[in-house]
Amino acid sequence: MTRAFNFSAGPATLPESVLRQAQAEMLDWNGVGASIVEISHRSAEFIAVAAQAEADLRQLVGIPDDYAVLFLAGGATTQQALLPLNLAGAGQPVDYVVTGHWGKTAVKQARPYAAVNLAADGEAGGFTDIPAASQWRLTREAAYVHLTANETIHGIEFREVPEVGAVPLVADFSSSIASEPIDVSRYGVIYAGAQKNLGPVGISVVIIRRDLLERAGQARADIFDYRAHAARDSMLNTPPTWNWYLLGLTVKWMLAQGGVAEFARRNAAKAALLYAAIDGSGGFYRNSVAPAVRSRMNVPFFLPSTEMDARFVAEAGKAGLIALKGHKAVGGIRASLYNAMPLEGVQALVAFMHDFQQRNG
Amino acid sequence: MTRAFNFSAGPATLPESVLRQAQAEMLDWNGVGASIVEISHRSAEFIAVAAQAEADLRQLVGIPDDYAVLFLAGGATTQQALLPLNLAGAGQPVDYVVTGHWGKTAVKQARPYAAVNLAADGEAGGFTDIPAASQWRLTREAAYVHLTANETIHGIEFREVPEVGAVPLVADFSSSIASEPIDVSRYGVIYAGAQKNLGPVGISVVIIRRDLLERAGQARADIFDYRAHAARDSMLNTPPTWNWYLLGLTVKWMLAQGGVAEFARRNAAKAALLYAAIDGSGGFYRNSVAPAVRSRMNVPFFLPSTEMDARFVAEAGKAGLIALKGHKAVGGIRASLYNAMPLEGVQALVAFMHDFQQRNG
Repeated sequence: MTRAFNFSAGPATLPESVLRQAQAEMLDWNGVGASIVEISHRSAEFIAVAAQAEADLRQLVGIPDDYAVLFLAGGATTQQALLPLNLAGAGQPVDYVVTGHWGKTAVKQARPYAAVNLAADGEAGGFTDIPAASQWRLTREAAYVHLTANETIHGIEFREVPEVGAVPLVADFSSSIASEPIDVSRYGVIYAGAQKNLGPVGISVVIIRRDLLERAGQARADIFDYRAHAARDSMLNTPPTWNWYLLGLTVKWMLAQGGVAEFARRNAAKAALLYAAIDGSGGFYRNSVAPAVRSRMNVPFFLPSTEMDARFVAEAGKAGLIALKGHKAVGGIRASLYNAMPLEGVQALVAFMHDFQQRNG
Repeated sequence: MTRAFNFSAGPATLPESVLRQAQAEMLDWNGVGASIVEISHRSAEFIAVAAQAEADLRQLVGIPDDYAVLFLAGGATTQQALLPLNLAGAGQPVDYVVTGHWGKTAVKQARPYAAVNLAADGEAGGFTDIPAASQWRLTREAAYVHLTANETIHGIEFREVPEVGAVPLVADFSSSIASEPIDVSRYGVIYAGAQKNLGPVGISVVIIRRDLLERAGQARADIFDYRAHAARDSMLNTPPTWNWYLLGLTVKWMLAQGGVAEFARRNAAKAALLYAAIDGSGGFYRNSVAPAVRSRMNVPFFLPSTEMDARFVAEAGKAGLIALKGHKAVGGIRASLYNAMPLEGVQALVAFMHDFQQRNG
C-alpha cells in the first residue's frame, strides 16, 4: 500500500518529509558514521540536536524564559504520577476537573500521593459538555488545579483558559499542544505525550514555571524529581534520543509550515468540514458533544448501528482511510485530525462518508 | 563517512541489517500504509510485533515461564526507583553490593524508599575488584540483594552468580544481557536498559519472577506498579512502540546469528584480543581491573598521559574508530564491545593501538 490517510488517535500520523529525513539518515546521521540512535546522548552532536529541539519548541509554542522545558521518557501517564510528587505535599489537597477518560486517569495516578478533590466532573452527563468554571468547587489551599485541555476519546476540548485564581493551573495538552496559540503564562505546568501533535511516541514534554521547581513536594527518587531533570537539561539519565530527535524534526516542520497560527487555521478548517458533514447527514452520523466544546483534534461519531460502524471502518480502510475505529470505551468511529493530517485527508474522509451514506442510508 | 566502528557505551552500535530493515520500513511498515511509529499500540499489528519480541527474547535469554517480562519506557535508572517501591515495604532493609558507578546510582534511587544496607562496596579499592561474596554483610530480612552484573564505566563484571540464600537476587544487566548464557532462575529480577545489547535507547526490559509481583510493596501510582504493567502486557499506557519494534528486530538478529552461546564465544574472543593488546603493550596501555573480573563488554584503558588519551581518541575517530573517549568520571579510553560490534572492529582497534604506540611510545 502507498501511504494512507491515517486517522489514528496516537501514535499518530507524522509528516512524510520527517519520515523521509529519518529514513535517509538511518545508517549515517550527519556524516558521523553512525545512526543517531547509536550515538551517545552526551556527545556534542546529540546535545546540539536536543538543544535545537528545545529552542524550536520554545519558538513554536511561545514558551517564556521563566518556564523550564523537560524532555522525559514515557508518556503523559507517568507525568500524572510525578505532578503530585513534585508539586504537592503528602496528602495536600489537589483539584481535578474531569471532562473525560484522561482526566479520570490523571485522578487515578494522583490518588496515592494527594487528597484529590473532584472540583468538577462531567461523567454524569456522559462527558458531552464541560461544567461551567463558575460552578467548580475549588479548594483554596490546593497545590494545583488539573484539567485535560483536550480529551481524545470523548472528543471534548477547552476552548478558553478557565480562571482559577492564584492556584497554578496544570494541564494535560497531549493531544492539542501546538494545534493553536496557547498563552503559556496562564498555566503553571503544561505537559504532553509527544505522540499526537509533537511527533513520536516514547517521549513527553513538561513545560513548568521555574518557581514551581522549588516546591518541596514529597520524598521521591532523583529520577522522579523535576528539579533534578531540569538541572541536568533532561539528561539525568540516558534519554530516549531517537524519539527526541524525531520530535525535533517534527517541530522544525511545524515552524516551516507557518507555526501555530497557520495550524490553528488549518485545524479549524478541517474540523469545520468534518463536523458539517456529520451535522448535515440528517442524523445518519451523530456526534453528541456540545458544539461550543467540540474537539478540533479528535472527532468521535456514530452510525445508526454498531454493525454499520464496523462496516464503515472496514470499507474506509480499503479506501486508504485507516485507523478510524473508535476507542473501545465508547465505540463508534473516531477521526483524529492532528497537525500532520492534511486537509486532503479530511476531504477524502468526508467524500467517503457521503458515499457510504448514499449506499447505506 | 561510511559506517564507522562505533565503540559507544550506549546508546551503542546496532546491527547494520537491523537499521536497514527499519530504514526500508520507515514510510510503510508491512504494507499497512503507515510507519510502525504511526500506528496504535492497541492495533492487532503492533500487538503481534510486541508479542513476537517477547517470545524471541524469552528464547534468546532462556526465560522460564514463571517469570514475567515487562517492556517499559525509559532506562534502568527508573527501574532502580521502582524496584524498592514494588519489592520492599517502606523502610524495609535492602542489601546493595556496589562494584562501580551504576551500583551507586541504584543505591541513590533506592534510598528514599528503603533502608539501604551496603552489603559490600568496592569504592575504597577504586572499583578494581569485586569483594568476595563470603565477606558480604547480608541482612537476613532484606527484601532483596541488588548487584550490577557489569559496570560500564569501571569495566568490571561478575563472572559467576553469587549465592545469597533465600533472599531474591536483583541484578542490573543493562550492559551484559544476552552477551552469554544466564541462569535466569538464580535471580528474582533481571532488568536492563535496552540501549547496549538489546537495541535501541528509550525502552527497558524487566524479567521478574511472578511470585514477586504479589509483594505488596509501597503506596504508588498505577504507572509505577509492576503488577499493573504485567496484567496489561506492558500496555497500561502507550508504550514506546518504535523502540520496542527495534528491540524486536535486534533480538531476532541475535537469534539468527546463533543466540547467546555464539555471542559468548564472539565476545570472549573480542575481549581476549583487546586485553592481550593492552597487557602486551609493555605498560603503554593500562587497565587495572583484576583479570578475573574484567568486563567483556566495556574495556577502559589509559595511555601514559591525558594529553595522549585525547590524541588517541581524535586520531582513532579519523580512522573510523569512533566513541572511544572514556566516561568523564574516570577519563582515559573506553571500548565497548557489545554483541553488535564485530570482531573486525576490535581487530581494527588493536591494529590502530599498535600503530599509535609505534608512533608515540
